[in-house]
Amino acid sequence: MTAVYEAEEIERSVDPVALIDAVADGFVRFSAGDVVVPPVGLLHFEDPPGDVHIKYGYVEGGDIYVVKVASGFYHNPSRGLPTNDGSMLVYRQATGELLAVLLDRGYLTELRTGAAGAVAARALAPSRVERSGIVGAGVQGRFQLRMLRHVISCDDVVVWSRSSDRLDTYRTDMAAEGVLVSTTTDLAEVMATCDLVVTATPTREPLITVDMVRPGQHITALGSDNVGKQELDSLVLSRADVVAADSRSQAFHHGECAPAIAAGVLDPERVVELGSLLADDAPGRVDDGQVTVADLTGVAVQDVVVAEMAYLALTG
Amino acid sequence: MTAVYEAEEIERSVDPVALIDAVADGFVRFSAGDVVVPPVGLLHFEDPPGDVHIKYGYVEGGDIYVVKVASGFYHNPSRGLPTNDGSMLVYRQATGELLAVLLDRGYLTELRTGAAGAVAARALAPSRVERSGIVGAGVQGRFQLRMLRHVISCDDVVVWSRSSDRLDTYRTDMAAEGVLVSTTTDLAEVMATCDLVVTATPTREPLITVDMVRPGQHITALGSDNVGKQELDSLVLSRADVVAADSRSQAFHHGECAPAIAAGVLDPERVVELGSLLADDAPGRVDDGQVTVADLTGVAVQDVVVAEMAYLALTG
Repeated sequence: MTAVYEAEEIERSVDPVALIDAVADGFVRFSAGDVVVPPVGLLHFEDPPGDVHIKYGYVEGGDIYVVKVASGFYHNPSRGLPTNDGSMLVYRQATGELLAVLLDRGYLTELRTGAAGAVAARALAPSRVERSGIVGAGVQGRFQLRMLRHVISCDDVVVWSRSSDRLDTYRTDMAAEGVLVSTTTDLAEVMATCDLVVTATPTREPLITVDMVRPGQHITALGSDNVGKQELDSLVLSRADVVAADSRSQAFHHGECAPAIAAGVLDPERVVELGSLLADDAPGRVDDGQVTVADLTGVAVQDVVVAEMAYLALTG
Repeated sequence: MTAVYEAEEIERSVDPVALIDAVADGFVRFSAGDVVVPPVGLLHFEDPPGDVHIKYGYVEGGDIYVVKVASGFYHNPSRGLPTNDGSMLVYRQATGELLAVLLDRGYLTELRTGAAGAVAARALAPSRVERSGIVGAGVQGRFQLRMLRHVISCDDVVVWSRSSDRLDTYRTDMAAEGVLVSTTTDLAEVMATCDLVVTATPTREPLITVDMVRPGQHITALGSDNVGKQELDSLVLSRADVVAADSRSQAFHHGECAPAIAAGVLDPERVVELGSLLADDAPGRVDDGQVTVADLTGVAVQDVVVAEMAYLALTG
């Protein structure tokens, strides 16, 4: 019999530290070619407007495969519903049995994206991170900090948003979780003072320009999950000593890499895959003066990893 | 909160007569271009061998969209599990809310395929059907008869299989449902005596040759759901006065039409779509001497229709 889990119990299930390690391992398996991830399925709706993404895949030799259905319906807030929703189906790889329906409402996607940010930070941040910056005070801006604190000291974190109200809410929300942050509406301040910067915005106009970048800085960008979105000016990637992507093919299609390559300022050969870097098959940061960039577009192996971990925790 | 339904309650939920009408309407909407059905998602597994199909879509202006995950894992019987499994997810089209998880184990797919057979029979059978033949004594051979009897008198039905044991089981199973059939291992007898023939086999070698076909006969073929499968010799389609397909594009890819077109004996322009025929936008049978063929490959709009009907029945 198939087990069905609601968001509340799922949210208590996953150990963040273990997830960060599992996502890192997932990236290694992905870059080694051991992960089957077919093209994403799409459904588009005009009225009311909405988009549905169906992602599915498995790690070869693993125990499960996963089908994730994620939706965004943009008029939902006017109905008192969240814009985004999602669930994951966990199947046994040997038999096709549906083991569990995880009605996580998108929580596991936010969590695994947070975990990917932590993996990138652990792999590429300079040896001393005195101050970290979070650019964007939305849901994913919270998850980035929640996961980052398991890999890097987060005693001094500054959060940026254009909106003081959003910053106030962010600060209050995270304080309730025992995490204290300062806030600013001055992005230049973040860039001038932080060793590590994570951008988590849906912007289509680059926020971070090359003149803001300081030596030694690591920047993880994870907002550009679709064609047309861009957080980093292309010259930032041009300037970087290391550019890592979770998936080179996806990053070349719609990540931060895409516009930089199109503009002719980034040689695609310079882009290393995060999983190759983690496996020591590609070079990463070699000294604390280098500028490094991680371009995270989101790969279905992260969904496989987080769904399996949630399933095991819920049933174990 | 999402409702989850097990196979037992789903099997009691759908009214077959209403489903036949709804599937017919679905074909009309499909042929009118009102149905969004993206390409099927596929996952293939080597060891143990298995295939997973992910079908999804919606009728424009409808209330729901559906994601269906169906699997075949070919070593399952050795583990005491059925080869095939499946479930359907029903979402609200206006908001993306997951309304119901239908753990139907593939039942609804069998049912909607049976309903499509009934739709084709109602549209194309000669005005008098004295005797009907079912070619293939498997699960779908049962569903075809279960649905056919709602549109055509089934007082005289003969079922063919190569295996007498399978025929015995079929006859016993259907008798338990109050449906009496005769059986034969002689396919020529079926073709010589039946006005309506439904083929539901997984054969890759055509079973029915043109010399077996008699004037006035209607043949529905629904076994060729993938490239390489073929139940009707291509000359049967060449001989037919009307060739209808549930989806022309699918039938040209992997239905009975595909090998006939490849062999140069069927002009693709002659193939009408079942939904166009039902909408009187394309010609069907005009007299009782004509030979007609329906080539059913299975279209996701059937899944949308049957899932919506099951959902409404279960929650109504």
